[in-house]
Amino acid sequence: MITPSELTPREEIHSRITRLQKVLVEKEIDLALILQNVDLYYFTGTIQNGQLFIPCQGQPVFFVQKDFARAVAESPLKPLKVESLKELPKRVQEQGLSGKKVGMEFDVVPVSVFNRIGGLFGEWEFKDLSREIKQIRSVKSEFEIRQIKKAGEIVTRVFSEVKNHLQEGISEVELDARLTSIGRTLGHQFFLRMRGLNQEMMNVHVLSGKSASVTTYSDTPFGGPGLNPAIAQGSSARLIERDQPVVIDYGAGYNGYVTDETRTFVVGRLKDPFIKACQVALDIIAELESSGRAGVVPARIYERAQEIAEKAGLRPNFMGHGDGQVVFVGHGLGLEINEWPVISKGEKRPLQPGMVFAFEPKFVFPGEGAVGIECDYIVRESGLERVTQFPKEVVTL
Amino acid sequence: MITPSELTPREEIHSRITRLQKVLVEKEIDLALILQNVDLYYFTGTIQNGQLFIPCQGQPVFFVQKDFARAVAESPLKPLKVESLKELPKRVQEQGLSGKKVGMEFDVVPVSVFNRIGGLFGEWEFKDLSREIKQIRSVKSEFEIRQIKKAGEIVTRVFSEVKNHLQEGISEVELDARLTSIGRTLGHQFFLRMRGLNQEMMNVHVLSGKSASVTTYSDTPFGGPGLNPAIAQGSSARLIERDQPVVIDYGAGYNGYVTDETRTFVVGRLKDPFIKACQVALDIIAELESSGRAGVVPARIYERAQEIAEKAGLRPNFMGHGDGQVVFVGHGLGLEINEWPVISKGEKRPLQPGMVFAFEPKFVFPGEGAVGIECDYIVRESGLERVTQFPKEVVTL
Repeated sequence: MITPSELTPREEIHSRITRLQKVLVEKEIDLALILQNVDLYYFTGTIQNGQLFIPCQGQPVFFVQKDFARAVAESPLKPLKVESLKELPKRVQEQGLSGKKVGMEFDVVPVSVFNRIGGLFGEWEFKDLSREIKQIRSVKSEFEIRQIKKAGEIVTRVFSEVKNHLQEGISEVELDARLTSIGRTLGHQFFLRMRGLNQEMMNVHVLSGKSASVTTYSDTPFGGPGLNPAIAQGSSARLIERDQPVVIDYGAGYNGYVTDETRTFVVGRLKDPFIKACQVALDIIAELESSGRAGVVPARIYERAQEIAEKAGLRPNFMGHGDGQVVFVGHGLGLEINEWPVISKGEKRPLQPGMVFAFEPKFVFPGEGAVGIECDYIVRESGLERVTQFPKEVVTL
Repeated sequence: MITPSELTPREEIHSRITRLQKVLVEKEIDLALILQNVDLYYFTGTIQNGQLFIPCQGQPVFFVQKDFARAVAESPLKPLKVESLKELPKRVQEQGLSGKKVGMEFDVVPVSVFNRIGGLFGEWEFKDLSREIKQIRSVKSEFEIRQIKKAGEIVTRVFSEVKNHLQEGISEVELDARLTSIGRTLGHQFFLRMRGLNQEMMNVHVLSGKSASVTTYSDTPFGGPGLNPAIAQGSSARLIERDQPVVIDYGAGYNGYVTDETRTFVVGRLKDPFIKACQVALDIIAELESSGRAGVVPARIYERAQEIAEKAGLRPNFMGHGDGQVVFVGHGLGLEINEWPVISKGEKRPLQPGMVFAFEPKFVFPGEGAVGIECDYIVRESGLERVTQFPKEVVTL
């Protein structure tokens, strides 16, 4: 039932490392040191505990503490066993790694780890490589797109099951639990990783009626009440009522890669302003699909979406309301759910072939509820390719 | 069905802040700046996006970006609205906050955030407060213990349901999915937070037969194969077989607080060495329960456990095998699952009343499987109090 996952092919790892080396040369950085688990998986094919050194020229060196045998089995690089960080200076020297400027992931490496590394390699000058890594990771290979599509299959299967579980009187969190279980049984990897301090995302948010208009800390059009103030996102114990929109935001993960999609459901029938907002969401999607392709500037996509919302008189409700309103309509996806490109007001760098993003025109009505749709797209030279298919109608059931 | 969560009481927040202030005075630190979401929740009662300044004397100042209304509703402190970090220097000055030495959470704050703060407050000298915060958080109040017990109730209910779902031929991951769903429906908060770089933990691991002897990157006696190399922990697609041990490690979360317990199950009957190892696990627990109390040194508990394993000829299997063996038999719990105290070889600081830890004597047999039990304890002056009750027999079904 669950498709066994693929190991990352050797040529894939080679190409990723070559792309990073090109950037290192451009930025005059001698060596990159990769420490975060997701970046390690990206550049080595394994998430086992280790440190990867990529010189601007020559072969990468991958030290592994635990689990060594597993790293050897999974990574096309040849891991070298190292018992502890203390050994690193000696081993680095043995491997002939040298340099003065060393790039690191400043956006995720904690100060204490940074200081530890600095203590071991006192002569190095450290530079931030976060942006360069995010840039490289934003363009996906066909191998990566295949993984994302498999995650998309889980999402599609889960949404197709909603009709068997959604009913008046079921709580948001119980529906959430059932959909989580369905996804997991289909091979959902459980984690939806999100990059950076304090970033965390649940697999599913089931928000009905006014739950969907509850704002929270997250940089999302709706965040939901959650079950308690320590979590403060997602489904609540609220019972689902007739004729109120139920928005289900579901992220699946397969072999590290994630998708993030939203559908709107209802038990009974929706009225305006929800019906109208659903149509406007579809209009925004139609506009994206007719004009989106490599070379298009994300800020322009965001502006067009905003204009369509404005014209429909729904600008105050577009992508949240009041203080909860966000200034983007889409975000990149891959091994993490907050990758580049962001389809936002400020993003002027054009889309490139192989970028993958979630596009999510959503409308929030304070105290009443929210509707919207979210669909994932792959950027191609000539247009956009959908990761999954969504129904013609926004609202189903 | 789901108990509504409590807000953190004012006196609770006050006492936590007072404890931190006492440490600041001792360490001659003028001001603490708290940025991580879990520490923010601990010291403010809300996890909304903000920055908390705690001077060594006087009132804390809590700035909030988003969601301000929610922070006001949840926190007994009086949050002040701040649009962005850029405003902080001006606002900090307005609030009369001053100092030279400023403490921060070096173990979780990324370099880029640290540099940003350093850029805003150029005159400050930053000190690491991680250890002090972990120390304070390691001693729980009765309010916190009540939350942990509620998380324990979820664990107990989930384990009591295993018999209705465990059967020959079900996959580990399908059983995992069902147990996840049962917990979530009972109000599980979904996240099991873990502190530090690359630390992540699933809610449940279902490991049958040889799956439980697969080692991985995590610092745990067994980690499991997981579904793919990007995740590399937890349940696999393996079908559960008769007469093989099934270890289920389940963590529940309620109002931020977590529990972490393990039971061993079997369809059919276990043979030696598993039966013997189960008995030794119970012997180790009996030893802990007879001698554990405030004042006892964790290293001594670990040594005693190791001696009992040694005497039974199971030292090579105790807490993992080969490279996968870990040098602890328990770990602190609270808002994160890797808190202090660690019941390890090296931990010489005595247990204090109010500490809460998971104790997990486990035995791993390479290529065959693992058995064990994990139970959470509250440290009292006169002994240990169990968070949940576990059955007299390790193996059930």
